[in-house]
Amino acid sequence: MESAILIIQCKDQKGIVAAVSQFLYFHNGNVEEVDQYIDNDTGDFFMRAKWELSTFAIKKDQIERIFAETVGTKFGMNFTLHFTEPKPKMAIMVSQHSHCLFDILSRYFSGQFQVEIPMVISNHEKLRSVVEAFDIPFYHFPITKDNKADQEEKQLKLMEEKGVDFVVLARYMQILSPRFIAQYPNKIINIHHSFLPAFVGAKPYHAAHKRGVKIIGATGHYVTEELDAGPIIEQDIARVKHHNTVEELVQIGQDVEKVVLSKAIKYHIAQKVMVMGNKTIIFN
Amino acid sequence: MESAILIIQCKDQKGIVAAVSQFLYFHNGNVEEVDQYIDNDTGDFFMRAKWELSTFAIKKDQIERIFAETVGTKFGMNFTLHFTEPKPKMAIMVSQHSHCLFDILSRYFSGQFQVEIPMVISNHEKLRSVVEAFDIPFYHFPITKDNKADQEEKQLKLMEEKGVDFVVLARYMQILSPRFIAQYPNKIINIHHSFLPAFVGAKPYHAAHKRGVKIIGATGHYVTEELDAGPIIEQDIARVKHHNTVEELVQIGQDVEKVVLSKAIKYHIAQKVMVMGNKTIIFN
Amino acid sequence: MESAILIIQCKDQKGIVAAVSQFLYFHNGNVEEVDQYIDNDTGDFFMRAKWELSTFAIKKDQIERIFAETVGTKFGMNFTLHFTEPKPKMAIMVSQHSHCLFDILSRYFSGQFQVEIPMVISNHEKLRSVVEAFDIPFYHFPITKDNKADQEEKQLKLMEEKGVDFVVLARYMQILSPRFIAQYPNKIINIHHSFLPAFVGAKPYHAAHKRGVKIIGATGHYVTEELDAGPIIEQDIARVKHHNTVEELVQIGQDVEKVVLSKAIKYHIAQKVMVMGNKTIIFN
Amino acid sequence: MESAILIIQCKDQKGIVAAVSQFLYFHNGNVEEVDQYIDNDTGDFFMRAKWELSTFAIKKDQIERIFAETVGTKFGMNFTLHFTEPKPKMAIMVSQHSHCLFDILSRYFSGQFQVEIPMVISNHEKLRSVVEAFDIPFYHFPITKDNKADQEEKQLKLMEEKGVDFVVLARYMQILSPRFIAQYPNKIINIHHSFLPAFVGAKPYHAAHKRGVKIIGATGHYVTEELDAGPIIEQDIARVKHHNTVEELVQIGQDVEKVVLSKAIKYHIAQKVMVMGNKTIIFN
Repeated sequence: MESAILIIQCKDQKGIVAAVSQFLYFHNGNVEEVDQYIDNDTGDFFMRAKWELSTFAIKKDQIERIFAETVGTKFGMNFTLHFTEPKPKMAIMVSQHSHCLFDILSRYFSGQFQVEIPMVISNHEKLRSVVEAFDIPFYHFPITKDNKADQEEKQLKLMEEKGVDFVVLARYMQILSPRFIAQYPNKIINIHHSFLPAFVGAKPYHAAHKRGVKIIGATGHYVTEELDAGPIIEQDIARVKHHNTVEELVQIGQDVEKVVLSKAIKYHIAQKVMVMGNKTIIFN
Repeated sequence: MESAILIIQCKDQKGIVAAVSQFLYFHNGNVEEVDQYIDNDTGDFFMRAKWELSTFAIKKDQIERIFAETVGTKFGMNFTLHFTEPKPKMAIMVSQHSHCLFDILSRYFSGQFQVEIPMVISNHEKLRSVVEAFDIPFYHFPITKDNKADQEEKQLKLMEEKGVDFVVLARYMQILSPRFIAQYPNKIINIHHSFLPAFVGAKPYHAAHKRGVKIIGATGHYVTEELDAGPIIEQDIARVKHHNTVEELVQIGQDVEKVVLSKAIKYHIAQKVMVMGNKTIIFN
Repeated sequence: MESAILIIQCKDQKGIVAAVSQFLYFHNGNVEEVDQYIDNDTGDFFMRAKWELSTFAIKKDQIERIFAETVGTKFGMNFTLHFTEPKPKMAIMVSQHSHCLFDILSRYFSGQFQVEIPMVISNHEKLRSVVEAFDIPFYHFPITKDNKADQEEKQLKLMEEKGVDFVVLARYMQILSPRFIAQYPNKIINIHHSFLPAFVGAKPYHAAHKRGVKIIGATGHYVTEELDAGPIIEQDIARVKHHNTVEELVQIGQDVEKVVLSKAIKYHIAQKVMVMGNKTIIFN
Repeated sequence: MESAILIIQCKDQKGIVAAVSQFLYFHNGNVEEVDQYIDNDTGDFFMRAKWELSTFAIKKDQIERIFAETVGTKFGMNFTLHFTEPKPKMAIMVSQHSHCLFDILSRYFSGQFQVEIPMVISNHEKLRSVVEAFDIPFYHFPITKDNKADQEEKQLKLMEEKGVDFVVLARYMQILSPRFIAQYPNKIINIHHSFLPAFVGAKPYHAAHKRGVKIIGATGHYVTEELDAGPIIEQDIARVKHHNTVEELVQIGQDVEKVVLSKAIKYHIAQKVMVMGNKTIIFN
């Protein structure tokens, strides 16, 4: 069944929840999920409501306008309206590590991700055959220092043509340019193989091994211009021991990476992630 | 600051959230926390709302009546109203194991539990000195087969005199009679040292060792007449290895028990636990 | 580099570790891993030693005989000798759930499993295309009440022809006959979607939902005649909440299942699992 | 029963394990625990062996000399010999946070820590009464900028008089001087309230809240001159959510802190921690 999802952000004021609840009730909305959060440090109010469209009294293409007129403007709301159909279009970018990609494809195959995947982009050919076994187009964009800017333009153009809504970096080993990032603000999800803010940058498992930590982790976050510093969506960890080599940390860590990335994707698809400054609110 | 907490249960109907939100907004309630849950299997609706009393337009002793008249009756609600002051009175029952008791006392000492502790009851003298170091009265009720019913009556009378609101069994090694349990329905919290429903009854660590499990656990639950079968409030686990003896399982498990029990107590104090049949809803 | 792995079981006696260490030292073995365990309840001794073959003074095909003559017989040891080459042959049996299968194939693809996969057997056609994308033969054996015994015979014959060393049930929804199990004692690894011994049998997520548990889990175990009662190799859990539907438990649980099964497989491949009665020793 | 524990470190060479095993076997040692580790990066060998003294052929006060003469010197070993009796003497230093202290006292009371506690030292009076309820001497050393060096001298003198073997900083909010640290190299255990190396220094929960992490943690480590940079003994984490305030992070984190610190203490008491550069080997 098709549903609508309303995402609201504004200054906290008395009566917001009552007004939104009244709006949905008055127009016969069957509410499936509703969450709100007030940030006491900033005084900001956040809300997410999901309701069934089939019984709703307002036509799909009128909801945004009527909500703005009757509720949104009054409270000075920034709000966005989403629908579960058509499914969002997710591009995947990957290099040679397969664990995150396969985990995503596995969930896509089983119907766990309500998403379309119009493309997997890679700077290597290695993973083509498996991707194509899932009937997903695979695009090879080899990257060198010299062609990087050009290739990014072509990637962006391809994404635009195919109507890509958001991008997943499934261990894509290239740093995206500020220009690329600016096209998809808070819509590029990266997996970093450490529990940030520890071990920013390259080779975090080597750094973890050198420091002698007893836990390693992974962080799913939105990409911003500053490396590994964007809003964190999800994190998890695994225990390691003194005898684990760097190679074993890599293997242990991959199990964490893939689950963390897939959870971040799931939250994003369901419009459950709201960005507040450099932090996220997860309505889960 | 003093707050009111409203706990609502009724059949799901359109407009409930709007009506409650309007009630709080209309009377100038500053909402701190609000959660709702619809059980799709049973069609039951559950809600918890917490708001500050200082700015609320209705006097404390009028809220219940006015809410019933304007909202509660209309929707056929079962509801209860609670206030954060005065603090609830919690009785602790304990035998000889000290880990759960000390963990509770430690949190009480540091102000983490918003509760009064008018008594610790034990069937042994062993833990008296530490309890009294926290300025909490310690009552010794030795239990034998012959005196058990009499002692329970005395315990119940003492609890009634002191106005006990709920009871915590911090590894109390006596099975309470149905008559005792009936005095505190869904108000006696027990810690069982297994992840229920595995290993019901006596000596769960021995049973876990014999079965060769790789994880052990603990379960905080409300006591009902059927042993270890009441509504589960909280559970957690710890990993164990083949070389761990039963004694080591006991030590490892105690760390889980005390944290699980204390979390269950914390949820109960904050009125965050609602019982639905033999299950709990935790508004956390 | 090729290594030898010696697995020893006998009654505990003084001098065993010294004798085995001397044997390896005397013949110039470069020991990579060595673990031992004494079960104090039964007085049984277990040991696993792994060493490099390249520098070892005894020829590969003489090690078993010479060890028996100089050490094994003296201590009344049951021992088995394994080599990391050739790689063991693993058969996978699967029905329609893809998450465990894809997780295994992903690890196989990335070289994490030192194993050959001569076949995936399924009672459905659904997963053929992905399996074949990994260049692994896919065999379809539809099962009905009437043909089950016959099909099992054909499966066993195929496994024998291909030299299968052990079998993984990656959510294979058929109960194997005692005759089948007897061909691969402690060599059939199953994933059960609960933390055993809780929720044995069919539909454990439904049972978990009904009981209102706060954690769900999965168990990797060797298959024995009694359903879900064989030696446990690995277990793990995930937290769930009151609002999670059965369908959500299934999704959350699948992430646990696939990681637990893959860990159990990894331990088995590396000869790190020893069975003692109905329990396992994991030398990890 | 009394046991001996031998801790060995040397360059890796063939025959070490065989030689030590032979030594113990030859002198009729009943081995309870034995672990070894070879660090492939440095070529260092580490071993820990624990055996019963009652049946051992060498007298307690001769073991060190005879082992050196027959094994230790030959392999160029650094080794230390320990006995489970008399119990080591542990000093606790604490400020005003009680959670770690009470957790330690609880384990001491129940016999989980095989240790004597000759003193709790604090720069505040707050926790005196509870400490004294456990019959442990409480010493108040108020600290100011001016008296710090003097007070440390008095603390060290007191520790020396009482024969303190190692020191636990149970949320002691003073930075120890290099001179103090030098008296107890790798014998001062601190709990830091973050998963190091993230959030070094003061107010890590505030920093974690500001960064918007989804997990917080705690680290038990040996104190070295560089703040929060010493060898890590144990770490663990807890999940947090966007709505958790700093105060809630503190409460959630305290449960992690106390368990991590107590585990680190337990490993240290059992001589299971070996320091290798700035990392630890945990023979657990």
